[in-house]
Amino acid sequence: MEKNYTAALLVIGNEILSGRTQDTNTQWIGKKLSDRGIRLIEVRVVPDIEDEIILAVNALRAKVDYVFTTGGIGPTHDDITSESIAKAFGVPAVLDEKARAALLSHYKKEEDLTPARLKMATVPEGAVLVANPVSGAPGYRIGNVYVMAGVPMIMQAMLDNILPELKEGAPILSNTVTCNLPESTIASRLEEIQDEYPQIEIGSYPHFRAGELGLSVVLRSPENLPLHEATQKVIHALEALGGIAHAVSIQSKI
Amino acid sequence: MEKNYTAALLVIGNEILSGRTQDTNTQWIGKKLSDRGIRLIEVRVVPDIEDEIILAVNALRAKVDYVFTTGGIGPTHDDITSESIAKAFGVPAVLDEKARAALLSHYKKEEDLTPARLKMATVPEGAVLVANPVSGAPGYRIGNVYVMAGVPMIMQAMLDNILPELKEGAPILSNTVTCNLPESTIASRLEEIQDEYPQIEIGSYPHFRAGELGLSVVLRSPENLPLHEATQKVIHALEALGGIAHAVSIQSKI
Repeated sequence: MEKNYTAALLVIGNEILSGRTQDTNTQWIGKKLSDRGIRLIEVRVVPDIEDEIILAVNALRAKVDYVFTTGGIGPTHDDITSESIAKAFGVPAVLDEKARAALLSHYKKEEDLTPARLKMATVPEGAVLVANPVSGAPGYRIGNVYVMAGVPMIMQAMLDNILPELKEGAPILSNTVTCNLPESTIASRLEEIQDEYPQIEIGSYPHFRAGELGLSVVLRSPENLPLHEATQKVIHALEALGGIAHAVSIQSKI
Repeated sequence: MEKNYTAALLVIGNEILSGRTQDTNTQWIGKKLSDRGIRLIEVRVVPDIEDEIILAVNALRAKVDYVFTTGGIGPTHDDITSESIAKAFGVPAVLDEKARAALLSHYKKEEDLTPARLKMATVPEGAVLVANPVSGAPGYRIGNVYVMAGVPMIMQAMLDNILPELKEGAPILSNTVTCNLPESTIASRLEEIQDEYPQIEIGSYPHFRAGELGLSVVLRSPENLPLHEATQKVIHALEALGGIAHAVSIQSKI
């Protein structure tokens, strides 16, 4: 069995906490990592406060293989991620010549590299840049921490540049079975199936659709055969209880 | 000046971390709390793992006035929130007679109160119930921790029942000014305005619309007059730089 790697995400930004902005980066990153056999096992959202960023990044980088951060690497006064990450690693934040060159190639003129923009080229000493094909200002890696922009389009472009350099585990396959039964009817049978397949993560998620309670059973595992077997048992159990089971987004195969 | 209270949210569920489900509860809760003068200052998302839930809830409840949790209080094997919260508080999880009665009134027949459903009436000893008008199974409060369902419609109904009992600070007013300039052009002037009004939280958020970089400047404060003044200065600064500023969602008034 291949190793599965772990990751954590640190979302930095008052705008997520106040409810002004709906975070969508968590879902994007969670999916992309699953595809590469890396499990996102914790997310934290913290405000633009240096001590909070330092505490969170130090707690998370000690706990997982890879930490990702989003937000706070822009040119304005509330962008304090790079300074905070530098302090978390006990290194100075320094103007990076390659980052400066990336900005110059984006803004074209030397005189357009204002102090505010040069802040985006100031990164923790020892950081390795991650290219930003959208707006020039790069992300970077320091230790096991990848620092990315918060704007989804830019974050996604940076992540595409990061993914190939991550260690890859067995992709986590996921099967979903939806059904028109309330989840309490299947609970005891589902627990039996979970006990029989302890290596498979089985989740039961109720939903309302058109005013009716229904559920989705999600089975996740890097191992194809037991996943397929357990999924069949879930389908049979739901049908035996009089439900109409729909097997949707089945990744395992026999 | 009235006190502002603080809150944290603990989102419990593998489905958020894997990317299967887009969390929307954070935004909803963040907004509702802001309206009551309570600042959401941290969010954590953890998997359905007992030790992780215990660690997170104990860290958060020591840090803020109110902790909210979402998810993991249903009838299936992966719903382990109540047991974990009980352990975090060092109390047993017990069948609550009022919770049982709420379930009976929802399911109607005694024989429909299966062991799986009765699990939803099993809460940490000493918990005070929060009514669930949608699907019967209640949420609850223990200490400063409010435990709610993960399904948004149910969470929202529970939160409506919780909000009136929270201590209320001055509502946090929020003004938003959008503009067609990239944020780096306004950065230095914005920092001056921030320095002049340290009690106002000023955030600058870039966005892409129709392929063009623009920005939203968000100013937040429980104090009306300085907020209004600072907002006017931001608008004038943006216009002085040649931008077209739109004042949108302005809550402060003169």
